Amino acid sequence: MTAALNISPCYNIILHGSGVYDGTEVHEASACLVHLSRAGSEVSIFAPNIDQMHTIDHTKGAPMEPNRNVLTESARVARGAVSSLSDLKASDFDLLVIPGGFGAAKNLSDWAVKGPDSTVNEEVAKVIKDFHGTKKPIAMCCISPVLAAKVIPGCEVTVGQSSGDLWPYAETCQGIEKVFIYYDTLIVMSLTNCHTTCFLNTCLYECHVDEANKLVTTPAFMYHDPSQGWHSVHLIFDGVGKMISAALAMCK
Amino acid sequence: MTAALNISPCYNIILHGSGVYDGTEVHEASACLVHLSRAGSEVSIFAPNIDQMHTIDHTKGAPMEPNRNVLTESARVARGAVSSLSDLKASDFDLLVIPGGFGAAKNLSDWAVKGPDSTVNEEVAKVIKDFHGTKKPIAMCCISPVLAAKVIPGCEVTVGQSSGDLWPYAETCQGIEKVFIYYDTLIVMSLTNCHTTCFLNTCLYECHVDEANKLVTTPAFMYHDPSQGWHSVHLIFDGVGKMISAALAMCK
Repeated sequence: MTAALNISPCYNIILHGSGVYDGTEVHEASACLVHLSRAGSEVSIFAPNIDQMHTIDHTKGAPMEPNRNVLTESARVARGAVSSLSDLKASDFDLLVIPGGFGAAKNLSDWAVKGPDSTVNEEVAKVIKDFHGTKKPIAMCCISPVLAAKVIPGCEVTVGQSSGDLWPYAETCQGIEKVFIYYDTLIVMSLTNCHTTCFLNTCLYECHVDEANKLVTTPAFMYHDPSQGWHSVHLIFDGVGKMISAALAMCK
Repeated sequence: MTAALNISPCYNIILHGSGVYDGTEVHEASACLVHLSRAGSEVSIFAPNIDQMHTIDHTKGAPMEPNRNVLTESARVARGAVSSLSDLKASDFDLLVIPGGFGAAKNLSDWAVKGPDSTVNEEVAKVIKDFHGTKKPIAMCCISPVLAAKVIPGCEVTVGQSSGDLWPYAETCQGIEKVFIYYDTLIVMSLTNCHTTCFLNTCLYECHVDEANKLVTTPAFMYHDPSQGWHSVHLIFDGVGKMISAALAMCK
């Protein structure tokens, strides 16, 4: 349809707060926007108009009061230009992008609490199913691929490596594995050609492409090397770039 | 000293909240971190432990309650790794970076209220003076250069263009001009070779280097084309990249 009408393709990003521990990981969201912008893409931003699971004081890693609204906080990343997820129609867009951050596992689903037994927010699940059902690509990074694991049976995702000191959320892999066992379809979650060991220079900035489901994922901040500080953020940026490029290629 | 002791240079970023309308512009902060990371730089993040001037609901552009703390909100951009600005010693670092966002004009100073008659937060002014006084480079983008304009007499900065529909904060230029008239030193604020007209492709992603004061500035989100949506964010990213590169070159 896009080509026939000669209309520029439109892409959308779903945010889920602002701040890694209770919302969107802002550097992943920013990387998505920079790479989409460089590709000349038109982007709209959405977020669910719901309360956050909780609000975390990021200096302490502990809950604080009062709680905050996901849409309102997402507007901080979106520079105010954010719409309610209930207004998102998959038919208006050619690509769905969901950056990571705990908000994906706390606000868009309850994976942070229930792991493989979690439930995905109904609006979010509908959007993912609508994009998947109409064969439009979906790009997700960091912890967000758990949403695909719950909604798209048999899909392939990466959430980084399943073991190793540099992958503090490695148990997510086992959780996703359990989801896939439910589907009776055990899937490889580690990066292609990189199943057993993580090397920063070979894995962090790569993405995994599930051609059959038009699903592209990259580990992003699932990787964390405490000794490196901010030294790996450009590799995360590059991994998100590969994810966006691979997803855009599927739009054509 | 750095070279003699063979110690890697250390850089620091001052944040001032999280969200463009009452704090740090998160995409500018993220761009600073990505470019510093790619250069292999060690980065520490600081923010003043003070209340914000106010807290803005970014969906409405209007104040909301309760107010928030600058350090606590900055931790959302810093992934928790932020220290109080009172602990920052210029002697420990080789470069100072201050990204933009209204927080620079509301929390680090009261420029947003008083313009050229504003006062810079004492801790912030001391840090800028300490870096400048010891001939260490300073990089600032968007509205943050007003801090240099108030603290470093006769410095050259850019805050974008002084007129044009695409520069909604153009009056900042007149404000800075007024500051410089106080100093009896009228300075060119527009970008080099680009005094009268803004062209997105020639100006937005450039920076201005004040060699004498080791001060590098770039307009970033001082530019805004409502018709373009997110289409210019990669150029802002690139402008920040040029700013960081020019500042790092001065560290050597």
